[in-house]
Amino acid sequence: MKAMIKSLTTLIDAFKKLPGIGQKQAERFAFFMLRSPENDVKSFLASILEAKKNIKICPVCCAYCEKTPCDICSDERRDRSTVCIIENYTDLLAIERTGKYKGLYHVLMGVISPLDGIHQDNLSIKIFMKRLDGVKEVLIATNPTVEGDATAIYIANILQPHKVRVTRLAKGIPSGGNIEYADEITLVNALDGRKEI
Amino acid sequence: MKAMIKSLTTLIDAFKKLPGIGQKQAERFAFFMLRSPENDVKSFLASILEAKKNIKICPVCCAYCEKTPCDICSDERRDRSTVCIIENYTDLLAIERTGKYKGLYHVLMGVISPLDGIHQDNLSIKIFMKRLDGVKEVLIATNPTVEGDATAIYIANILQPHKVRVTRLAKGIPSGGNIEYADEITLVNALDGRKEI
Repeated sequence: MKAMIKSLTTLIDAFKKLPGIGQKQAERFAFFMLRSPENDVKSFLASILEAKKNIKICPVCCAYCEKTPCDICSDERRDRSTVCIIENYTDLLAIERTGKYKGLYHVLMGVISPLDGIHQDNLSIKIFMKRLDGVKEVLIATNPTVEGDATAIYIANILQPHKVRVTRLAKGIPSGGNIEYADEITLVNALDGRKEI
Repeated sequence: MKAMIKSLTTLIDAFKKLPGIGQKQAERFAFFMLRSPENDVKSFLASILEAKKNIKICPVCCAYCEKTPCDICSDERRDRSTVCIIENYTDLLAIERTGKYKGLYHVLMGVISPLDGIHQDNLSIKIFMKRLDGVKEVLIATNPTVEGDATAIYIANILQPHKVRVTRLAKGIPSGGNIEYADEITLVNALDGRKEI
């Protein structure tokens, strides 16, 4: 179409690369950028550049951080005998929000998923195996999906010779959930994991 | 929360300014940027900078363009006696996609909407009134909303002394639509606008 401008098409295509964004929403973003004052656009670009420049990956736990090792790894008040293994940094943020967990973390940066070409060597498992000194408990908090479960079992297996306690987050009915609408696997997990009250 | 990094928070806040984007999706965009290779991020930033630099507003029709006047305004094969008035540039793209319209356009850059503080002077109506020379038909293609209708009536009124034909896009049942589910105003419009077959 003649009316479509080249730099506009390029801009829309750029926004379409963002996860979950299709043509229509990319167009909205593009026109929003064109309408925005120069300064707003500049600070938007600056925030991306700043983040790319400042945010590193912690060499100890593989979490995002601004200084290495990260705030959690270098916090002396943290319980260094417990390490929680999570798939992604966002899971770390979710667990931190609870304020309940006081140990350290280790970000796997994914899960084992052969169909997507992700094998154990693509994850940060080797880095994790180097920090087992003084660790008494490894809490595996991968998602309760097929891949998350497979990854948990794989890690539990390679930890077996190391005599650490290996635990996994409880599975069951979510708080505020509805037994009537719970799927069968969730209900089976809830029954298996039932507790005295 | 201690685990949240400053440049990351800034980045998420920047993405939250995009239209229709909330916390969760902004986080997805932010982590996508952090994961993306340096070059991809650079070309993303470049496409925004390029678009902001290259895309201007056509002084004749107020559409976005790379060179002024825009491709449509400077196209000699276009029918210069018909001007279609639209709210936004995206409406121009939609009408161009049909391939049916051969006249010129005029982008209002909004609609009259006193509740949002948008009055006739905030639109490009004055610029439009300067290009009435040789125009025989003004097709008002504002959206069939309260504001779009009010804007259409306003423009029709100020065009009255100028002896041009003023038309408006037909209102009725959309193609592929369902009479059963059509709202009353749409049905009234369809009845009012009925045609011999």
